[in-house]
Amino acid sequence: MKVGILGAGQLGRMLAAASLNLGLEPHLYDPDAGACGHRAGRCWPFSYTDQDSLERFAREVDLCTFEFENVPVEAVQIVSRHTHLSPGTAAMAVSQDRLHEKNFLRTLGIHTPDFKPYDPGQELPEQGILKTRRLGYDGKGQLDLALVKNPWREIGQQPCLWEEKLKFQRELSQIGVRSRSGEIQFYPLVETIQRDGILCEAIAPARDSQALQPQAQIWVRAILEGLDYVGVLALELFEVDGKLLANEMAPRVHNSGHWTDRGCTTSQFENHWRALLDLPLGNTEMLGSSRLLNLLGELPEMAAPRAGVFPTIYGKEARKGRKLGHITLLAPTEGEVDELARQPWQSGVVTHGS
Amino acid sequence: MKVGILGAGQLGRMLAAASLNLGLEPHLYDPDAGACGHRAGRCWPFSYTDQDSLERFAREVDLCTFEFENVPVEAVQIVSRHTHLSPGTAAMAVSQDRLHEKNFLRTLGIHTPDFKPYDPGQELPEQGILKTRRLGYDGKGQLDLALVKNPWREIGQQPCLWEEKLKFQRELSQIGVRSRSGEIQFYPLVETIQRDGILCEAIAPARDSQALQPQAQIWVRAILEGLDYVGVLALELFEVDGKLLANEMAPRVHNSGHWTDRGCTTSQFENHWRALLDLPLGNTEMLGSSRLLNLLGELPEMAAPRAGVFPTIYGKEARKGRKLGHITLLAPTEGEVDELARQPWQSGVVTHGS
Repeated sequence: MKVGILGAGQLGRMLAAASLNLGLEPHLYDPDAGACGHRAGRCWPFSYTDQDSLERFAREVDLCTFEFENVPVEAVQIVSRHTHLSPGTAAMAVSQDRLHEKNFLRTLGIHTPDFKPYDPGQELPEQGILKTRRLGYDGKGQLDLALVKNPWREIGQQPCLWEEKLKFQRELSQIGVRSRSGEIQFYPLVETIQRDGILCEAIAPARDSQALQPQAQIWVRAILEGLDYVGVLALELFEVDGKLLANEMAPRVHNSGHWTDRGCTTSQFENHWRALLDLPLGNTEMLGSSRLLNLLGELPEMAAPRAGVFPTIYGKEARKGRKLGHITLLAPTEGEVDELARQPWQSGVVTHGS
Repeated sequence: MKVGILGAGQLGRMLAAASLNLGLEPHLYDPDAGACGHRAGRCWPFSYTDQDSLERFAREVDLCTFEFENVPVEAVQIVSRHTHLSPGTAAMAVSQDRLHEKNFLRTLGIHTPDFKPYDPGQELPEQGILKTRRLGYDGKGQLDLALVKNPWREIGQQPCLWEEKLKFQRELSQIGVRSRSGEIQFYPLVETIQRDGILCEAIAPARDSQALQPQAQIWVRAILEGLDYVGVLALELFEVDGKLLANEMAPRVHNSGHWTDRGCTTSQFENHWRALLDLPLGNTEMLGSSRLLNLLGELPEMAAPRAGVFPTIYGKEARKGRKLGHITLLAPTEGEVDELARQPWQSGVVTHGS
């Protein structure tokens, strides 16, 4: 069975690798012929505006998904005319525009920070966060109004969303998965640690999160069912004074779930395919306590992997701040994971990757 | 970095998948364009006698290995003229001929069953096992002399090896890995259970094997060092009255080690690449007690993977006796693994694989 992936970055690469484990044949479509995911399957290095190639690709595969919600809508529409695309265009449309997304979350009764749309040139509040409505991820397309003089010049003349600046205690992420026939499973709520807007660490499960987990799952369930969603979805959250607020959703496998590659019986990548194939979803229980460490900008010196230390390298060229790989730590207890995490850069990473 | 694999069966497929995890770019060479491994990387579907293609392939990759010791020697020689091939041609030449192999093992002081070469037509003993000297694996190319009337007609007119028929208590397998700079690591001794000459189950670690493990490791170390070997090697063993006898060696990743994909921090597949790349070898300790269950001939009904049940499907068409996938079971204790093994066919296997 042939499966398609729009986008061939590291998420596409890991989705492709997980599809191999299920006996599938991955095809990746990405204009960048050098994208690291292309090496994990059949490579379709064509433009998202190349209608012929998109059609051939869509006809070649039995079903299709994407690694990235910002694939141009027109490309997605062409593909979905010729094959089964999941998550659907509805999920993509919602998550491509931060205003639509926030409104959608609110209609489901999900709490969010205050927000308000602003058009280019419009007078802005002096405090708060200004975010572009489109093409934002990893902290891109946003700025702190208290820190810049000319926000419209900084962010470009484009529709934006203002959000209140929260004093949150921590950031969390809840990943859920829903299959074609409606089965839903959740991974544990995890705590995410960002630096410059980029995820650098995830703690699984999040500490002292028993009281928060039910709320997070209720919200993710509402989104999955509200969109008749098929596949893995992540909801990024803030914790403010013991309560949750939704930040944004990602209609795809998510960096905060990479630790599931070894921390759970069934990874988010495998369960994404199981959902699309309408197979019973795999067990999402943790095999122990886990930690995800992103490898950003450069790969550490190589050393022998110790017990419970699982590196994954994406095969991308090193560049400042770039996600080049990750390490999953797994041990029976959180204390032992802490111990492993104390020397993460001795974890047997390859430096020949690129 | 580009790595080559001669042969694109399931071993090539799993080697390719493991190479992705290390940031590498796998290229697979196999005359069968439909071979399941071809879907896990760049596909070179050319003949082993096509010198031009072999040369282009060898020049394209930075180093090369093989999934199968019976790749024609001429092809191997062409490839090794243009790239670094490991394990070397010495290991391949030894293991392609059962007589050379047995003699080699004996020169290292490794105990084997009695054996004697026979040429076609030569009068044979009435008892014992007759094996072809070349192209034997998975019980192919051998017969029990007590059970056939015309052994030379059955086995074909070719040089053979006679071996005594042993009354062994069980079969075992010892896998070791040696890196380019000479570091050696061992996986635990495992018990293998064959049916019709095909491995169907492996128990890791082998029960009551503490007394046998040191001998098995001494022998594998002797082979690895004797051949200046680089990569993973398996030695198949018989246990007879508490003593070990060597059956045969396989100069490659081995079916009896597939459980290391989830049963150990570092799988045999990853350590094979680490050895070739001369990286420090990864930790080979077990994460618990493990069991390997081969999926032969047909794939079981799909069901949800339970905790500790890890299926891998190769994406091959179903055919009687064919290896279509495997399940790794992992639990803290052998008793819990036994419990998991009682319903292996409810383990969440995909049936869309082919």
